[in-house]
Order: sequence, then structure tokens, then C-alpha cells
Amino acid sequence: VPPVVTFLSDFGTADEFVGSCHGVIASRCPSALVIDITHGVPPHDIRAGALMLRAALPYMPAGVHLAVVDPGVGMGSGPEGRRAVALATASRSRLLVGPDNGLLLPAAALFGGVREAFDIGASRARIEPVSATFHGRDIFSPVAAALAAGEPLDALGDPFDPATLATLELLSTEVRGDALLTRVLHADRFGNLTTGAAAGELSALGVAPGDRVEVRCAGRSLPAIVCRTFAEVPAGAALVLEDSRGLLAVAVNRGSAAELLGADPGAELLLSTAPGAARPAAGTGTPA
Amino acid sequence: VPPVVTFLSDFGTADEFVGSCHGVIASRCPSALVIDITHGVPPHDIRAGALMLRAALPYMPAGVHLAVVDPGVGMGSGPEGRRAVALATASRSRLLVGPDNGLLLPAAALFGGVREAFDIGASRARIEPVSATFHGRDIFSPVAAALAAGEPLDALGDPFDPATLATLELLSTEVRGDALLTRVLHADRFGNLTTGAAAGELSALGVAPGDRVEVRCAGRSLPAIVCRTFAEVPAGAALVLEDSRGLLAVAVNRGSAAELLGADPGAELLLSTAPGAARPAAGTGTPA
Amino acid sequence: VPPVVTFLSDFGTADEFVGSCHGVIASRCPSALVIDITHGVPPHDIRAGALMLRAALPYMPAGVHLAVVDPGVGMGSGPEGRRAVALATASRSRLLVGPDNGLLLPAAALFGGVREAFDIGASRARIEPVSATFHGRDIFSPVAAALAAGEPLDALGDPFDPATLATLELLSTEVRGDALLTRVLHADRFGNLTTGAAAGELSALGVAPGDRVEVRCAGRSLPAIVCRTFAEVPAGAALVLEDSRGLLAVAVNRGSAAELLGADPGAELLLSTAPGAARPAAGTGTPA
Repeated sequence: VPPVVTFLSDFGTADEFVGSCHGVIASRCPSALVIDITHGVPPHDIRAGALMLRAALPYMPAGVHLAVVDPGVGMGSGPEGRRAVALATASRSRLLVGPDNGLLLPAAALFGGVREAFDIGASRARIEPVSATFHGRDIFSPVAAALAAGEPLDALGDPFDPATLATLELLSTEVRGDALLTRVLHADRFGNLTTGAAAGELSALGVAPGDRVEVRCAGRSLPAIVCRTFAEVPAGAALVLEDSRGLLAVAVNRGSAAELLGADPGAELLLSTAPGAARPAAGTGTPA
Repeated sequence: VPPVVTFLSDFGTADEFVGSCHGVIASRCPSALVIDITHGVPPHDIRAGALMLRAALPYMPAGVHLAVVDPGVGMGSGPEGRRAVALATASRSRLLVGPDNGLLLPAAALFGGVREAFDIGASRARIEPVSATFHGRDIFSPVAAALAAGEPLDALGDPFDPATLATLELLSTEVRGDALLTRVLHADRFGNLTTGAAAGELSALGVAPGDRVEVRCAGRSLPAIVCRTFAEVPAGAALVLEDSRGLLAVAVNRGSAAELLGADPGAELLLSTAPGAARPAAGTGTPA
Repeated sequence: VPPVVTFLSDFGTADEFVGSCHGVIASRCPSALVIDITHGVPPHDIRAGALMLRAALPYMPAGVHLAVVDPGVGMGSGPEGRRAVALATASRSRLLVGPDNGLLLPAAALFGGVREAFDIGASRARIEPVSATFHGRDIFSPVAAALAAGEPLDALGDPFDPATLATLELLSTEVRGDALLTRVLHADRFGNLTTGAAAGELSALGVAPGDRVEVRCAGRSLPAIVCRTFAEVPAGAALVLEDSRGLLAVAVNRGSAAELLGADPGAELLLSTAPGAARPAAGTGTPA
């Protein structure tokens, strides 16, 4: 079984950035199997990156998990800087490598949280001279490759207290009367809106599959049905369902909820029971 | 020689969807060589997916060929549902895994058609609990990985009559007087329009390389030259040629036929001999 | 250690083109590790492709380096045609395969330049029949695979004098009084503009980190600071820095210089010392 390195970033694939990181890993750990999770995280969107890493990690073989969404590259590791880190999870099965900006923590939490943390900013594995702008290539990839090649964590960085890691709250919900307040985390390729609410939280509203709810977001309102699958509503109609990330999502069967609601990541999203709402039909979002 | 899994989908690469499938395959068949054919099939465009799978398969090593363009995910396998299937071709060299919506059949036809078909919707290889929306990760990928790892087809699903598979006609041409009627299947990155006509069908019009034809599509008309390569016409001029998929295509040398004709996939396209047409020059499409 | 094939093209990932090339390589050299550098080179932009290949190659393991940006495909190899070539660098560590249009040379120059050149247009490794439009699949990939499998260069093509290769000048700078004239080579995903000036050439202006400069491009003017990293200016402010390609770049911290300047690849870019310029702040480009 080859050592596994998974790789997520916001580098896109229009440039050679991802390729250069692959080259570094192949140079230093030729036997590694590198699995690209995605490089399409919106530029600098740490939250979307954390969401995708958390969604994918349970499906990845145990190994080294490299993730780089790093708007703070080059800020140094001073008080207002960000550290470059390598983390071991409590279950010890997973090693995470990336910037200390919260990106790695929601995924680590699925494996018992962080047990050990190392500052790799001055790692002996890094490529010299380190560029000022591309630590993905010069620090994170070579450290990930060294770990995949079997070098121990404590030979690659300086230990520090995991309690000092920058945190990031991905999930956020609040019950407001008969409504659930959360926010949009990400719109996927199909226009489905993943929210910061776990799928089970709909039960706080007392709704069940088949019930109608009202989705309010970005000044618009959309009637929707609580469903298990897209196919339970007609094409063009809205639904609320548990998505493949285990989160509550707003979607439109064969359409785009992102377009219909005009909702951007970060926007507040209110779900309420809608006893008087008309049965949703194919249509457009209407002003709330 | 490692077992090969090829992978085509409409998942895009902006999210972790493709990565999660790779993770599942690597977890269950670590020695597999996974070749991504493309994940840029337009969302839900079964026809474009079938076109690309058919074009790529002859260049792929024999193995397991996973393809997922699946607007009907979650519809169940009832009368109006779609089955999840694994197919063996007549030549037995190819195993195809994907939804039963026609996507796989044009490619299978190149290898003698389907000899055996298995419903894998309840396969013991699937990931439990199966999500309602992401069978690519939870059913198709683990079954493909199990096949690549050497498990026999009949241990992974329930056999059914291949004659009951949903079909899809990719090619469609009709001779109308001195014209050939077909339709646009897909516009590629370069704006070249692949049609549903085999390249050889131009001969029905009695035209040969160097001859002029008239292309009518979406209410516009474009004079073009029958060519073997782009370089036979000046930059900006239109041509009709056999593309790398073996089909008749309309293209513009160093330009975009898709833009010039404003033609969307599915649009009817009429090719006619054009004795009175002026020699095509760089220019714009003119109203027919 | 597996043989390495790196692969760069302008094929995009929306179609099966890249996948088909991977299939050809895997069919002919199953042990090859294929590293995609990028397939997002803007269509037909030889210069951007050459830039990215040159930036990535030093980070790639030694091996076969396949690169295809080939607007002249099908032009034949006559006087106005372009050859298909395989090149060995002076250091003999690198083999480059692609069209003879300058794409490969800036990368080769980093490894001592080209020592041997072979015309592979009629290579016995090519796939018959060769399509008229997709030499990436039918000529370049099979030759790259054969080289990776250990076949000698001189068995795969006909030698010719490397001095007759088409050239391409990537870098271009000119000192004009107190200003440096160069041009935009490429705008990356983040909107950073890579120029044709080596990073060290700013010293010709007598400026150092922290100094102000004026960037003039496409009829606009932008005050900027000479920096080492993005974080040295506030969000929204412009900077001039050495990018990860070793070239001088114009960027905006957490913003897009490409958008602010409206500069397309090829546009002239003038950098001058700006003693009277106000300290740059977050803002928009102003007419020069």
C-alpha cells in the first residue's frame, strides 16, 4: 500500500501552481499516491476550504492531508502572522499540513481533534530559498512529502500547544421562535447551497420529510419541501435536504438555488415552518 | 500492470466530489491507477457525457470504466427510477459502471455492446449509509473499486436483461434533398461544434475536401470549407471537418464556431452544398 | 522509482482531451507516473504555456516533459508548417516533447538548452491513423510514453539541427530613462500580473523594498510599493514583487491587479520611480 497524500487548495488549475506541488511531492516521495480533493476552493475562502476538507476526509485513506488556503502567506509567524503547521489527530491516524488559520480544524475534529502540533515554518524539509508568496510549494508540499516518506513529525518542526491554534467555527445555528437561523457556507457546481446547520437540526422546527418550509435569504423568500432526494419535487421546485456533506442544504431540482436566491457565501439564511405557504412549484424566488 | 479505473462525470472540480470518489477507490483498491477522463461534462448533460466517454474509451487501457452523469439520482429503481448498473461488454474486456440512463451505451457499442448487466443499487460493496444524493461516492465508486480489485461482477449485483437498459441515440442524421440534417452534440473548449453525424456522411452530399458548404444553425448561416485540418483556411474562417471524435464538426480556425453560430447543444444543424456561396473569409455569422 | 511524464497543455479539462492522452500514456507505459502541470493555459497562448512550463520544470523530477499548445496543428512540417519534436537538454536529464513553436525552449534553457532535436512527426510510435486535429493524443503522448518506457530518442524520430528550432523570447525589458518597460505575460487565478522582467531588474531603477513606484499599463496608472510579500501593504493596495516564477509581478493584496489595470497579456507595462506619488491606498486604477 503506497503512502497517501491528499491535497486541497484554492490554487485553481489554470496555472502551474498545483502541478509544481505535485512535482515537489513526487521528487521527495516517489512512491506517494497523491489524491487531489479539489483545487477549486474560492480564492482565500478558508471557510469553504474547511467545509470541503471536512466533507472529504472520512472518505480518504489514512495518510498525510495537505491543505492550503492561505491569504496570510508571507505574514510571518509573529503576533499578526500565521504559522505553517503540521498536526497529528488524537486518533493518530491522520497528519494534517497547512496554514494555522482554522482550515484544518473542522476536519481534525472528526478524528478526535488535534493531539500534537508542530510549527514547520522553518522546517529542515522546506525548499531553499523559500519564496515569499508560494509556501504551498516551498514549505507545505515538501513537509507533506517528508511525512509520507516516513519522517517523524518531531523531526520536521517545533512543537507547540495545540490550544493556541487559530480556530474556525463552521457550523452555526440558532433557533429563533419557530425559525432556524444559519448561514450559507458554499454554493456548489450545481447551485446547491450548503448551510452551517447539521441536517438533524431541522427537527428543532418540528418538521419532517414532506413538510413545507420557507427559506429566507438575501432579501428573498422561497417555499421549499423537506425531502430526502431531489426527485421528490418537480423540476424547478425548491427543497431542503441533507446533502452529501451531512449538512442542511437548500437546492432546486435540476435548477440552481444559488441563482434563485441570489445568496452569496456568508449570507444569513432563515428556515421557518410555513403553514400558509403555497405548495412550491417551479418558479423564481420572490422578494420576502 | 496495475488495475485501471477510468472516471468521467459532471461533478466539476470546484468541489470535493471527485476527490471523495478517488478517496473511496484508493481505500478499496490501493493499487488502482485512476485515470480521469473528464469531470467537466455540463451538469446533467447525459448526451455530452456519452459522447466524451465514447470518444475516450478506445484510448483507455482495458479495465473498469466509471461514468456518472446522473440527474435521476435518488429516484429509486422503480418504474420511473433509474437503476445503478455494472455492465460487461461483449468483448469482455471492458466493465462499465454508472447510472442506467444511456450514458454508458454508445461507448459499450464500440466494444460489441453489452453482454451482461447487473443492478448494483443494493450491492454489498456500497458504502453504508448510502446518501440520498451522492451515489457516485457511495455506490458507483466502491463497486468500481471492487471490480478493479478483482471481485466478480456477479458478486456485486443482481443480473438483469441488458435489453431493458435505457438507450440513447448519439448519432442522428437525415438527408434532406441536397442537405444533411443533424444536430449539435457539444461545443468544446475551443468553440468547435461536434455534431451527431459521422464524418463519412458528408459524402452523401457529394462534397469532398476543398468544397464549399453552407452551415445553417440557430437561425444563422455560415459558409464553410470541407477540410482535413484547421490550417487549410485563414484565421477566422469556418470549416467542416472530421474531429478527433470521428464525428463531423464545424469549426473556425483560431476562432469559435459556437460563438459565431450562437448554437447550443441540441440545436438542429443543416449542412448543404453551396454552389453560389462566396469563398468564406474571416467574418461573422450572417442571418440565414 | 517510476518513470515520470509531466504534462502541460491548453486542452482545458471540460472535454475528454486530457483524459485520452492519459489513456494513451497508461496503455504504453503502465508504470509511468503522470504529473499534470496544468491544462489551463489560455487556448493557443504559446507564451503563457512557455512561462508555466519554465516555472514548473525545476520542481519536477527528471523525466519526460510533454507540453502541447499547438495552434499550428495540422499545418504539416513544410516551410510554413510546424514540426512535432522531441528534445534532449544539454544536461541530458530532461526530455521535452511537443510542437516546434517555441513552447519548450524557455524551459529547456534552464537545463543548459537543447543538445539534440528529433522530428517525431512520422515517429513509428505514433497512433495510426493520425487524426488531423489531435496530435497531442496521436503523436505527442505515444512518443512521450515510449521515451518513459525507455526507448531511445533516436529510435523515435529523425535528428535535425537544434539551431533551426523556432524560438520564443519570454523575457523582455528595456530601460527608458528612469523607467523600466516590459509587458504582461499572464494574469493568474488571483489576478496577479506576471511580467517579462526578471525580478532583479527593478534594481536598474534604483528602487528597493519599501519604495514607491508607478505602474502604467493599458492607459491606466497605479501607485504601488516594492515589496517582498503581499502582507506588506493593506488589503486593496498594489505592490510590485518577485513572484513564485522568479519574475517581476504586479499584484493587489487580496485583490486583482488584472482587474484594476484592465491589462491583457501582451500589454506594455511601464514601471517608473514615483517620487511625487502619494502613498498607495486601497483604491482603483486612475487614468494615466
